[in-house]
Amino acid sequence: MTQTIEPITTAPSPQARVDAWLADFEAALAVRDVERVVAKFAVDSFWRDLVSFTWNLKTLEGRDAVADMLGARLAETNPFGFRTRETPTADGDVTSAFIEFETAHGRGVGHLRLKTDPEAGDQAWTLLTALQELKGHEERKGTTRVMGAVHGSDPDTRSWAEKRHDEETTLGYENQPYVLVVGGGQGGIALGARLRQLGVPAIVVDRHERPGDQWRKRYKSLCLHDPVWYDHLPYMPFPQNWPVFAPKDKIGDWLEFYTRVMEVPYWSKTTCLSASFDDAAKTWTVEVDRDGERLVLHPAQLVLATGMSGKPSVPTLPGQDAFRGDQHHSSAHPGPDSYKGKRAVVVGSNNSAHDICKALYENGVDVTMVQRSSTHIVRSDSLMDLGLGDLYSERAVAAGMTTEKADLTFASLPYRIMHEFQIPIYDAIRERDKDFYDRLAAAGFELDWGDDDSGLFMKYLRRGSGYYIDVGASDLVADGSIKLAHGQVDHLTEDSVVLTDGTVLPADVVVYATGYGSMNGWAADLIGQDVADKVGKVWGLGSGTTKDPGPWEGEQRNMWKPTHQENLWFHGGNLHQSRHYSLYLALQLKARHEGIPTPVYGRQEVHHLN
Amino acid sequence: MTQTIEPITTAPSPQARVDAWLADFEAALAVRDVERVVAKFAVDSFWRDLVSFTWNLKTLEGRDAVADMLGARLAETNPFGFRTRETPTADGDVTSAFIEFETAHGRGVGHLRLKTDPEAGDQAWTLLTALQELKGHEERKGTTRVMGAVHGSDPDTRSWAEKRHDEETTLGYENQPYVLVVGGGQGGIALGARLRQLGVPAIVVDRHERPGDQWRKRYKSLCLHDPVWYDHLPYMPFPQNWPVFAPKDKIGDWLEFYTRVMEVPYWSKTTCLSASFDDAAKTWTVEVDRDGERLVLHPAQLVLATGMSGKPSVPTLPGQDAFRGDQHHSSAHPGPDSYKGKRAVVVGSNNSAHDICKALYENGVDVTMVQRSSTHIVRSDSLMDLGLGDLYSERAVAAGMTTEKADLTFASLPYRIMHEFQIPIYDAIRERDKDFYDRLAAAGFELDWGDDDSGLFMKYLRRGSGYYIDVGASDLVADGSIKLAHGQVDHLTEDSVVLTDGTVLPADVVVYATGYGSMNGWAADLIGQDVADKVGKVWGLGSGTTKDPGPWEGEQRNMWKPTHQENLWFHGGNLHQSRHYSLYLALQLKARHEGIPTPVYGRQEVHHLN
Repeated sequence: MTQTIEPITTAPSPQARVDAWLADFEAALAVRDVERVVAKFAVDSFWRDLVSFTWNLKTLEGRDAVADMLGARLAETNPFGFRTRETPTADGDVTSAFIEFETAHGRGVGHLRLKTDPEAGDQAWTLLTALQELKGHEERKGTTRVMGAVHGSDPDTRSWAEKRHDEETTLGYENQPYVLVVGGGQGGIALGARLRQLGVPAIVVDRHERPGDQWRKRYKSLCLHDPVWYDHLPYMPFPQNWPVFAPKDKIGDWLEFYTRVMEVPYWSKTTCLSASFDDAAKTWTVEVDRDGERLVLHPAQLVLATGMSGKPSVPTLPGQDAFRGDQHHSSAHPGPDSYKGKRAVVVGSNNSAHDICKALYENGVDVTMVQRSSTHIVRSDSLMDLGLGDLYSERAVAAGMTTEKADLTFASLPYRIMHEFQIPIYDAIRERDKDFYDRLAAAGFELDWGDDDSGLFMKYLRRGSGYYIDVGASDLVADGSIKLAHGQVDHLTEDSVVLTDGTVLPADVVVYATGYGSMNGWAADLIGQDVADKVGKVWGLGSGTTKDPGPWEGEQRNMWKPTHQENLWFHGGNLHQSRHYSLYLALQLKARHEGIPTPVYGRQEVHHLN
Repeated sequence: MTQTIEPITTAPSPQARVDAWLADFEAALAVRDVERVVAKFAVDSFWRDLVSFTWNLKTLEGRDAVADMLGARLAETNPFGFRTRETPTADGDVTSAFIEFETAHGRGVGHLRLKTDPEAGDQAWTLLTALQELKGHEERKGTTRVMGAVHGSDPDTRSWAEKRHDEETTLGYENQPYVLVVGGGQGGIALGARLRQLGVPAIVVDRHERPGDQWRKRYKSLCLHDPVWYDHLPYMPFPQNWPVFAPKDKIGDWLEFYTRVMEVPYWSKTTCLSASFDDAAKTWTVEVDRDGERLVLHPAQLVLATGMSGKPSVPTLPGQDAFRGDQHHSSAHPGPDSYKGKRAVVVGSNNSAHDICKALYENGVDVTMVQRSSTHIVRSDSLMDLGLGDLYSERAVAAGMTTEKADLTFASLPYRIMHEFQIPIYDAIRERDKDFYDRLAAAGFELDWGDDDSGLFMKYLRRGSGYYIDVGASDLVADGSIKLAHGQVDHLTEDSVVLTDGTVLPADVVVYATGYGSMNGWAADLIGQDVADKVGKVWGLGSGTTKDPGPWEGEQRNMWKPTHQENLWFHGGNLHQSRHYSLYLALQLKARHEGIPTPVYGRQEVHHLN
């Protein structure tokens, strides 16, 4: 008996497709055939590079941009060894893969999304390439961790504690740091930990008494608005019994603990008075006050990690002198305890305003929130579930999602099209929480969802403001427990806040929850307006939406990448960004410290001063 | 065309064999058929139970012991739901499986090793059952972690910091702790963290200024002798950049911040003056001095976690009064700095003696070690590689071994036969490091491998002394850099140590590296000799080897389990034991706190007073 074997036509597996694409991509790169490389990208495609090809944070949008970058950088980068890190997956017409590769100077990881063109076959839709370590300068961890005890007879008989003490007493005095990090919140601390681990001499300076005070000193009801899975710092995740939304003092303790355990050289009670860059010597001269002692430091690199929420914006209003009650910016608000039975007016309607109003109300204060413009509200549960749940949640952890993979996935979405991924999430949230939003609107609260309905995260990236993640205050607004007023403040009297429409709001205390200034204000204060203007606006994408003027930038302005002031850097953001982007900033600083050539491709032009 | 299908006889998979054994085991348990259960165990078999069946730490050796325990405990325990946690493995004639199960009061995990009897089929050779949580009292972690921020309007308007402050000012004053833990080293801290997590009101008291001083105050060259993978504390592993052998001050910092992060109520600078148990009220009266303030506490449970290395043994010798130099126990040794150019005699030849001699030699001190009896030496590298590598190493981590699985595997080996697993390891080490041992012997160093050649770990479990994990001192002994003398000290003169054979060792400083007393000495000091005698010797297995007199106990005497003094417990050991056994002690305390019946099966008789 004979059988005819039918030819079986099976589509190649995601693994086979990605392997084939990577092999041909690598072959084309190897022979420096830019045209052939570019043809492997879809017409509408994005290559985001974090320091591995460009020594910059750069999103190349479309084939011409890819071709231009490769023309400039391919030979020196000399990339090879592209391979998958785990089995690729397919979802609809998109095949996704975590990848790794090497360059002349380092090892990288990344993420690839393929789409199939009917004629050209598999093409890259998005590619992320991200440097992870420099060859010959690998971090010592896991299998290469330090021994600690010195086995055998040791020529240096100092103990660990003695070496630490000697270092602490000489760094900044006999020995100059290569990097000075100004600001010791989560950003400065995470960067400090990475620089320590990379062996780059650095000092983190901060004006507070101890690490973590950046959180401890804020209003007492403050808890993180981002959940624990999103907030891990480098090297040491929060323990499994850590709260979902950590209270501010607990985060403060963690940051203090982390700083010590990571052996970050950290100067508390230290203020930077001035800084100037010597173009010839390529070093900064930074005058600091360390707990009353005046010192001059000469770091090669200066990092401003003073934070998005570091420079309070307080409005200047007629009558502020005459007002007899307490008035302060939200960052200086002491909490509700001394205002029981009194009347409070809180100007503003974003996160801090809501948190403060809620705590005041719950402590028996008569409180009115002044909404000056529409605000985006999203309930914490819905944000956690629909916005972050696939990447940062117990559900994600159970499905095998690691912090590293989540960060790479997050970083792999090009900013240009990120809102397209976000809009459906907020459509779903609007539907799911319809009753909630209806009640808020009925109470007169002016809601928005961002200029293009893309919600909270895009607002954060574009302008860093304009929203409240609801953890209960909105219900108090909806039911009138927290009173609502609308409009701009015209002036204060002895005992009230008067709006431009004439509304008089009697007040014993006024809280200005009016946000924070641009981060390059720090550069102006410390270095000078000329340098601040040379660097330009910090933060935002150039999306052309409210408070984020165009032209399009493609990456966050001036964050974690070379600026137009040589050897000046900006670092900050939430815990997620402090964790993830500190790596790329640390690698840029490490490369410079080791004398590895770092030609910057595609430094952005400056379009806005602040 | 027809084919004859040959019956294929394949041996059942390890999974099928374990599933079949567990199913029949459970069925026999369910109908309370003890005889049938017992027949499922090999004649030479071991069932080790940690609190899940026996409310005790108990190894049942052989079928009769299993039958006796089940006769007493099966009905009340009501076990069910036995299943594998992952795919079982086979190695030679042994099939091994991690398992889980439930009881009336809790959920447990365990480990099973099957051997095949030609007639009876698969039989249990070793079974471990270990309670992990109490039903209705599960720890909040992972998916059930606390929220932190209170969403919605909160009737309790205090912040986290305020709640913590209120608790700190009332616990031990208006509110009595249910448990008082005396001793705040790694043992007390790990137990304190677990009790905190379980919601059992407890205070850990310690005489030092701050947590971690138990390590900081020791000789300056001290590093952990156990590697990092073996040393993790509960809930929060060391970070990936932690040294293999952490220096003492770094461990001290870790313990201090761990205590804070885990929110362990911890009273520093606190000494317990006396304790007595009220048999009628079932509470302790404990007089403490808290930084000068006298207080009386009334805990229900008293845990002595004062440590194996807490009570120095200093020999009383003629001439100690006359000696003009410094003399101190190893625990009080300040380090070598002030002895440069001088002559030191170190009495003893175990871990501390070697560490101190090495540091003295490296700092230019003329040092003589007095070996009083033979010592077991094992090189750290060899111990890590051959002794611990399969369970606690980067190699183990890479192979998927977790700390939990390693601890369960370790706990699954019955003490009765543990030496049989250990002897081949030390045979291999002796062969691998032959040159090293030959050199040491040639220098006159008296070596041993334990009474039955079972090496370091058995010495630790049996007597807690008699060894040095070599991190370099042995080479200095072998080459004569550290001088060696032998015998007992007869007396001291103004400027020398004189041995019983008349040898005179000139000395400017004498260090007594003479070890520590039995842990029940703490009970004698604190509560009284009558209670210490009632409780008997603490530590050791009753192996009948040197310093561990029989009869055989089966478990470590009095550790982590009910003693003959009601509501008195002992906790301690190395970091591994502090981590793993603190769980079972915490669950025993939690059950009592919640009023869950805890009838103790098989409380050991007392055979030795100390």
